[in-house]
Parts: sequence; C-alpha cells; structure tokens
Amino acid sequence: MINTADPSGIRDGEVVAPLPLRGDAELVFIGRVRTPFEQREDCPRQGRDDGQSCWLEVDEPWRVGLTGLEAGMRVQVLYWMHLARRDLVLQNPDFRGDLHGTFSIRSPVRPNPIAVSLTTVRGVDLAAGILHVGGLDCVDGTPLLDIKRDRCFGT
Amino acid sequence: MINTADPSGIRDGEVVAPLPLRGDAELVFIGRVRTPFEQREDCPRQGRDDGQSCWLEVDEPWRVGLTGLEAGMRVQVLYWMHLARRDLVLQNPDFRGDLHGTFSIRSPVRPNPIAVSLTTVRGVDLAAGILHVGGLDCVDGTPLLDIKRDRCFGT
Repeated sequence: MINTADPSGIRDGEVVAPLPLRGDAELVFIGRVRTPFEQREDCPRQGRDDGQSCWLEVDEPWRVGLTGLEAGMRVQVLYWMHLARRDLVLQNPDFRGDLHGTFSIRSPVRPNPIAVSLTTVRGVDLAAGILHVGGLDCVDGTPLLDIKRDRCFGT
Repeated sequence: MINTADPSGIRDGEVVAPLPLRGDAELVFIGRVRTPFEQREDCPRQGRDDGQSCWLEVDEPWRVGLTGLEAGMRVQVLYWMHLARRDLVLQNPDFRGDLHGTFSIRSPVRPNPIAVSLTTVRGVDLAAGILHVGGLDCVDGTPLLDIKRDRCFGT
C-alpha cells in the first residue's frame, strides 16, 4: 500500500494524480539522516556544504559498505522524503499561482520522493556506521537510502 | 518481498548482507528508459551527454509533470536497476581482488539500486510523455523513477 502521507491541502491550480494501490518495487531503509532540523519548517530549501554539521547513521549489516570513504570525498546522499505527499503532478510551490510540472522542479512532493544531495565527507566512524557530512536539507531522522561516491573524484 | 534478482555468483572476497524479507517503502514506476542497449553487456560504464540518443517514456497520469522542461535544460534522471543484486556490501567490481565498500563506488549492486544520471534534455513531447535526452548507461526498458531539473540552472 502506497503511503500518501501529508494531509496538507491543495493550492490553487495544483493537479493530483491517482497513485496506484500497490508499488512496483520495495525500498530498504539502510539507516537515517541526522540533522539539526526537528520539523519541516526548520529545514533550509537546500543543503550547503558549509552548513551545520549533519551525519548519516548506517545500520548493520550495511556498515562495512562505508569502507573506502574518507574525509574530503564528495558523495551523493539519497534519502526518502517520508513526510511528502506523492500525488501532485502540477505544483504551485511559491503560492503565487505559477504552476510547475513536478519533474521541472526539485520539490520533495513527487511520485517517488527520493532526495539526491551532494555533500562532502567530514569524517567516518566505520565501526559505529557514522558518516559525518556537510549541511543537508531534511528533518532529523529522515530514512537513508543510499550513499554513492560522486563521479567528480576531485575534492 | 524484496526481489533479489541476478543469480550471478559471488567473486573473491565479496561480502553478502542479509536483505530483509519486506521493504520499508514502495516505489512507483512512472515509465521506462529507452536506450539502444538490449543487454547489460552492451551498456557503457557511464552515460555520456554526447552519446547515442535515449529517451524517457512517462506514463499517464504523470505526463503533465513534464510541463516546463525544455531542450537544453539539465536534468537528473533516477531509474531502478532492476537486474542488479542488492545484497553485496563489499564488492570486487574489476575482478582483481581490490574490495570496495558498496557506498564508495557507483556499481548498480547496492541495497537500493537507484541510478542517478545527469543529462541534457534534447526535446520534449508532452502529449506523448516523451523526453529525449543524451546518452544513458542502462538497458532498454529500465524502470523510470524520477526526473528532476538539476540545481545548476545554467545549461
């Protein structure tokens, strides 16, 4: 059953798509994102590498997958925006009446609310499964999906 | 039930993690990626913006979500690497014995096999739900998860 969290209302002109009752594939949460932001209203619009420290907690049995990551490396972090509704195809994100197709913006509201953020590793504690990183944009406790070393291997 | 596709064998030194029997969240496939590559062996290691033409087919009811995308814009494309096994935490991708933590590389083999590729829009057919893009790296028919306009809004 697809979770359509977020009871928030629809804004002017927004278009809702019917979500299927069942999904097509299943995700595994491998840990969580720890940030200073307790609620959505506290989150910045976008993470900043020089922002407040955040960290990723990776659960067993995935911790050994952090092997090879070191401070200074750039990584993409994928996480699940679990508080976002998933059924809007046209959105009015700034309340001003400008409608945007969901795929032309980066709003967390999308059929698969997967966030992709680029950040720099500040430190690794392999035994504890902790990756210290730069500032991210999500609420504390957001489910973690993946970490990928960035293609641009320079710092 | 988590699909552990790919019956391929384990290479020297690789470490397998037990996957949970049930996932934590469900994905919706919004369409598919069309490429010239019929099998995994045909795929390049990485997409190239000047590579062979690929396109994204977006199904109803998500097509209107393409509104606002235009040729020349940079987008991130997220797709589900459905042929990849999901349970390796240490990998030996080049068969030479160097073991890499899954999160320190970009192999499709990962607990959540979500690929993130950056490409340039070459054309849009909104009514047909088609987005023409640069070269991608996956097999024809790979399930499409998301399209996000890239943060760097310059071409």
